Amino acid sequence: MFVILVYDVNQKRVAKVLKKCRQYLNWVQNSVLEGEISDANLKKLKMELEKIIRNDEDSVIFYCLRTTKYSSREIMGLKKGGDENII
Amino acid sequence: MFVILVYDVNQKRVAKVLKKCRQYLNWVQNSVLEGEISDANLKKLKMELEKIIRNDEDSVIFYCLRTTKYSSREIMGLKKGGDENII
Repeated sequence: MFVILVYDVNQKRVAKVLKKCRQYLNWVQNSVLEGEISDANLKKLKMELEKIIRNDEDSVIFYCLRTTKYSSREIMGLKKGGDENII
Repeated sequence: MFVILVYDVNQKRVAKVLKKCRQYLNWVQNSVLEGEISDANLKKLKMELEKIIRNDEDSVIFYCLRTTKYSSREIMGLKKGGDENII
């Protein structure tokens, strides 16, 4: 499936969270990653993030798209990340 | 359509961008908004944002979902925004 991940975590944990997410997804923009990921890997990523983030301070949102047939992405302004996986 | 908007703009323009986006979408998390929006309003929002952001410094991404039938949203950790429009 295609996942858009957005995180909002304490500065102390940003580097760790970003590093972990980049193992599975492509960085798009400050605090946003996206990409194709298997159910198994998504589960793994969530488990690993759970060990890093603090539930009372941090927030991570996963938008899971079973298909990208009905979606598109548009960027206004600066294009920051790579676009290997444009939907 | 359903839109997920993520912005990464210079601190100087954050308040203006957020205020403008909130006129059309629901705030979910730091720099993320989402919601149902008509084609006409999306066009309007883009035109208005174009006047606020600087193309060489700022970035705004729109993920447009023609249907939310194939998508889901999951939040880990803190739930910050409202959830009037959970997909």
